[in-house]
Amino acid sequence: MNEKTTSELEHLRGLIDGVDQQLLHLLRKRLDLVAQVGTVKHAAGLPIYAPQREAAMLAKRREEAQTMGIAPQLIEDILRRLMRESYLNEKDVGFKQVKNDLGSVVIVGGKGQLGGLFQQMLRLSGYQVKVLDKDDWQQAECLFADAGLVLVTVPIAITCDIIREKLTQLPRDCILADLTSIKTEPMQAMLAAHKGPVVGFHPMFGPDVGSLAKQVVVVCHGREADKYQWLLEQIAIWGARIVEAEPECHDNAMQLVQAMRHFSTFVYGLNLCKEEADIETLLKFSSPIYRLELAMVGRLFAQSPELYADIIFAQQESQHAIGDYLDNYREALELLKRGDREEFINQFQMVAKWFGDFAPQFQRESRMMLQSVSDMKTN
Amino acid sequence: MNEKTTSELEHLRGLIDGVDQQLLHLLRKRLDLVAQVGTVKHAAGLPIYAPQREAAMLAKRREEAQTMGIAPQLIEDILRRLMRESYLNEKDVGFKQVKNDLGSVVIVGGKGQLGGLFQQMLRLSGYQVKVLDKDDWQQAECLFADAGLVLVTVPIAITCDIIREKLTQLPRDCILADLTSIKTEPMQAMLAAHKGPVVGFHPMFGPDVGSLAKQVVVVCHGREADKYQWLLEQIAIWGARIVEAEPECHDNAMQLVQAMRHFSTFVYGLNLCKEEADIETLLKFSSPIYRLELAMVGRLFAQSPELYADIIFAQQESQHAIGDYLDNYREALELLKRGDREEFINQFQMVAKWFGDFAPQFQRESRMMLQSVSDMKTN
Repeated sequence: MNEKTTSELEHLRGLIDGVDQQLLHLLRKRLDLVAQVGTVKHAAGLPIYAPQREAAMLAKRREEAQTMGIAPQLIEDILRRLMRESYLNEKDVGFKQVKNDLGSVVIVGGKGQLGGLFQQMLRLSGYQVKVLDKDDWQQAECLFADAGLVLVTVPIAITCDIIREKLTQLPRDCILADLTSIKTEPMQAMLAAHKGPVVGFHPMFGPDVGSLAKQVVVVCHGREADKYQWLLEQIAIWGARIVEAEPECHDNAMQLVQAMRHFSTFVYGLNLCKEEADIETLLKFSSPIYRLELAMVGRLFAQSPELYADIIFAQQESQHAIGDYLDNYREALELLKRGDREEFINQFQMVAKWFGDFAPQFQRESRMMLQSVSDMKTN
Repeated sequence: MNEKTTSELEHLRGLIDGVDQQLLHLLRKRLDLVAQVGTVKHAAGLPIYAPQREAAMLAKRREEAQTMGIAPQLIEDILRRLMRESYLNEKDVGFKQVKNDLGSVVIVGGKGQLGGLFQQMLRLSGYQVKVLDKDDWQQAECLFADAGLVLVTVPIAITCDIIREKLTQLPRDCILADLTSIKTEPMQAMLAAHKGPVVGFHPMFGPDVGSLAKQVVVVCHGREADKYQWLLEQIAIWGARIVEAEPECHDNAMQLVQAMRHFSTFVYGLNLCKEEADIETLLKFSSPIYRLELAMVGRLFAQSPELYADIIFAQQESQHAIGDYLDNYREALELLKRGDREEFINQFQMVAKWFGDFAPQFQRESRMMLQSVSDMKTN
C-alpha cells in the first residue's frame, strides 16, 4: 500500500469514527426516549409491544429511507434491533400490576429456568412471589395459605403426580396454572385436583429469550376463566402474544413441532459423534446455512439431558410420528439406492406444491436469517 | 387511554421521529464515506473485507458504547448490519482487475444462477466475459480461441462428461476451472482433458448471497498454480475467504455437510406433507427456533428439484452416511419404545462430551440468531 492510499484511508476512517460517535449519541437518545414511552405506558398499564404502531412507524421510515437513496430494509433492520434493546430495557422500569389484591404467587419448581423467568416477570409487576422447590414441601401448607395463584413448573415427567398428590388443598379461589409443554394430562390433573379456577400455559420459547416481547404463550382454558382473565392481560403487558388452543389440538401439533424435532436433532448429533466427524473441518467448509444447522444441533447438547429426556419420553404418542418419519426416510433411501432420480423429482414437486406459497416465503425469510448469520461471522 | 397519556405518548413519538430522521442522515453519511473507502481500495487493489481493521473498529465502538451505558452488542450488531450494506454497495463501484492481459473468460453454463453471479463479479472487475450455454456448442471453437480462463458451471450430473468431451482443445495456457460442489472427479477429468493450468473451486454459498464478503470459496489445486494465482487474489478482492483442500478430503466432509443434510431436509418436508400437517397451525404454535427450522426446510422446496436431485444423486458414497444415519435413528427409536430413559441420557452425555466447547459456543451463536429471527417477527 503506498503512502497516498494509506493517508487517504486514514482520513476517511477518521471521518467514519466521527459519524459513529454521533451514531452512539443518537442511540443513547433514542433508547432514553423509548424508555420514557415505557414509563408512560407502565403508568397507564398499556402493553409494551404495540404491533400496529410499530408497523406504521417502520413503513414511514422505509419511505423516508427510499427518498434518501437508503435501502428500506437497512433502516428496518436497524430499528428492529433497537426495539429489541428497548424491550430488554423495559425490565428496568417494571410492568404495571393488573391485579392488586391477589395474595401471593407460589411457583412450584421456581428454581428451574422457566420458573425463574416467570418469577422475575411477576416480581417486576409488583406481585409477591414465593418459591416452592423440591425440598420445601414441609412448608407447603403455610405457603399455600394466602396464595392467589399457584404456578406449576416442575419437570414434565413428575408434573401430573405433583398436581395429583400435592395440590389438592389449595384455597378455593386460588388459581391453579402450569407451564408444561404438553397440556392434555396436566389440565385433567389440575381440574381433578382443584375445585377453583384452572388454566394451562405453554410458553413457546426458551428461558434465554431476555424479553417476552413478540413471544407466543399458548393458553388452554380450564375453569372459571373470568377469575384468571387478569393473568392473560398481565402476560400481554409483558409483550407476549396469547394464542388459545384446545389441549388435544395443542398436543397433536406439538408432536410434530417438538418431540419429533428434538428427537431428530438428538439423532443427528449422535450420528455426527458416531461418525467421528471433525467439527473444526466441518466448520471450515461450512456455508452460513450449515453453520446455522450445526449450531442448532450443538445447542441441544449444551442443555440438560434430563430436560430433553423428559420432553421426548413424556409424549408416547410421538413415537408414531417418529416411526412414520423413519419409514419415509427408509423409502427415500431405497429410491436413492436404486438411482430413481425421476421419482425423487416427482416427490420433490409434490412437497413443493404442498408447501405452496409458504416455500418462497420461507426462502425469503431464511435468506434474511442467513444474512444476519453472515454478519456475525468474524473470520 | 386517557387524554394525558395520549398527548404524552404523541409528544415522545414526535421526538423519536426526529431522532430517526437524524439517524437516517447519519446512515447516508456513513454509507457515502465507506463508499469512498471502497473507491480508494478499488484504485489500490485492496480487498474490500479487512477482518482485522473490522475487529479493531468494533472493539473500539463497544468500549465507547459501554462508557455511555449502551449495550456493546447493540452497536456491534448495528455496525455489522451497516457493513453488510456497504459490501453490497461495493458492487456499484466495481473491483480492481488483477490480471489485465488475460484474453477472455468463457463461462460454460453461464445461464445458471451461480454462473450468473461469477459472470457479474468478473465483469465488475473489468474482464471480458463470454457465456457458452447448452445451445452454443457450435460456436465453441470460436469462443475458446482467445480464452484465458474457462470456468465450468454446468449441472453436476453432466460436468465430467462435458469436460471430457468438449474441453480437450483449449489453448495451452488457458486456465481450466470449475465450480462443482464435488471435487475429486471433476478435478481428474479437467487434468485429463487439458494440459495447461487447472484449478477447482467450490463456492460455499448460494447464488442469493448478494455479496461475496466473508463467504468461503474452497480451492483445490490442480496444475501450474503460479498461472492462476491472480484468480485467487481476484476472488479475495471480492471479499471471499479462500480455504485450500485436497479434493478427497473436501468430498468426504461434503458427504456429511451437504448430501446427507439435503437428503434429511428433503425427507423432513416429505414427511410433513405425508402427515398432512397444517402449516398455518404449526406456525401459530411456533417458537422462533421452530419457525427457523421450518423455514430452512421450506427453503429447499422453493428451489429446483433437478438441482437437488443432481447434488444428492451425484454422491453415491453419501448413501453410506445416509444409511448409517438411518441405523442410528432406528436404534434411538427402539430405545424410546422400550422407555430406556437412562440410556438416552447416557448417549446424550456422550454426544455433549464429544461436542465439547462447541456446544456452549453454538448455544451462544444460535441465541443471537434466534434473537434476530424474533426481531423480524411482525405479528
